[in-house]
Amino acid sequence: MNIRLFIEGDLANGAAIECSRDQAHYLIHVLRLAPGAPVALFNGRDGEWLAHIDAVGKKSAILAVDSQTRPQAPEPDLWLVFAPVKRAPLDFLVQKATELGVSALMPAITRRTVVERVKRERMAANAIEAAEQCERLTVPRIENARPLSQILDSWPAERRILLCAEAGEAAPIHDFLRESGSGGPWAVLTGPEGGFDQTELDALHKFPNVSAVGLGPRILRADTAALAALACWQAVLGDWQNRPPGRH
Amino acid sequence: MNIRLFIEGDLANGAAIECSRDQAHYLIHVLRLAPGAPVALFNGRDGEWLAHIDAVGKKSAILAVDSQTRPQAPEPDLWLVFAPVKRAPLDFLVQKATELGVSALMPAITRRTVVERVKRERMAANAIEAAEQCERLTVPRIENARPLSQILDSWPAERRILLCAEAGEAAPIHDFLRESGSGGPWAVLTGPEGGFDQTELDALHKFPNVSAVGLGPRILRADTAALAALACWQAVLGDWQNRPPGRH
Repeated sequence: MNIRLFIEGDLANGAAIECSRDQAHYLIHVLRLAPGAPVALFNGRDGEWLAHIDAVGKKSAILAVDSQTRPQAPEPDLWLVFAPVKRAPLDFLVQKATELGVSALMPAITRRTVVERVKRERMAANAIEAAEQCERLTVPRIENARPLSQILDSWPAERRILLCAEAGEAAPIHDFLRESGSGGPWAVLTGPEGGFDQTELDALHKFPNVSAVGLGPRILRADTAALAALACWQAVLGDWQNRPPGRH
Repeated sequence: MNIRLFIEGDLANGAAIECSRDQAHYLIHVLRLAPGAPVALFNGRDGEWLAHIDAVGKKSAILAVDSQTRPQAPEPDLWLVFAPVKRAPLDFLVQKATELGVSALMPAITRRTVVERVKRERMAANAIEAAEQCERLTVPRIENARPLSQILDSWPAERRILLCAEAGEAAPIHDFLRESGSGGPWAVLTGPEGGFDQTELDALHKFPNVSAVGLGPRILRADTAALAALACWQAVLGDWQNRPPGRH
């Protein structure tokens, strides 16, 4: 069993890391590990390191860092901008999007967005857990929910947007991605249940970075559309040429 | 609001359809519809038809079929053979796979499969609800769980298998699908949490219909891998050249 933890501090040979209270609880009381047990660590900056439990208290644990097992490596730069969905699908979307390698998760309030309150901390906890399990070296950045118009007002000039919309003209996603050539920074943008409203669609179609793409003849739920578009992007322009490290 | 129901009976001009008890409850007590209200119907054979509520009782409703709105059309022939996952992810997987256009859902018991009991009726209910919502004209066939070896023993000679495995050699899914050329019958095959065991992998790699494909460097959960592979297949070889009907 491969235990992996995301930690905030720096990782280097011989470093001593104090776990968070939750992590200590997990190691000592859930997994019932004793001093000496191996744990893999990553912080999004220093690659992956093998460590071992050095000392445990009732509610604390100190990890001693032994050696680097994987260097930090570049990852695809792919944001997911999405109109938030209900709680259970949102947990699921954050976990799956993290596994599918998004670099940032950005909830966008649209005109038809029903879910008002988006719990950033809950999203972060889901993203960290998924990153630990899927063996990523990073955790996606989680932004606070903002109106879509505000997100677009400060949009980086070079970042392209794959707009997933069920209405209106759109190129089939595979044709579009193949013709787009190289990687570079991208984002997937998905709307709320019920879709973007017409004024939003008009504004999006005028936005120079936006390309509308089609995900087939069925009406996908918002979270399904996001996951499908992320998977297609990774397969064509992302890092899906690579295999998981250390498996044979 | 577009109400769509899957029904078993034949659909034709002037037909009278008696709803199931659950459907009648939904129309009368949840949606509070009255006689005259429009409802779209499909049965997987006769296309989509516009009907209206003709008469309601306390626990029953009769629908009168008016006119066809969409003819039945061919759909991609894509099975999903999967080692069942826990209950909440299984509900989710069945819904999403239905939206992504699978034609059959086949639970496979593998050596490391932890979930023993797979509720076929619950799967069918999830598939029907997803088919109604995503505007499919069919509902995927739901099979009973069987041992993987038994499924492979009666495997159709012409149906190819995309094996999603995190270990071993595999072609990147996009390269593989592009080089595979045309459609034809396919299946996506995913393993349990923890993966196929080595004897299963050896048998699968010897099976002539099987091609192992890679879904990138991160370790995807079983349900994420299934959805990602289905999306890529539909984008490259399936019907994602098409747009949803009747939307502008």
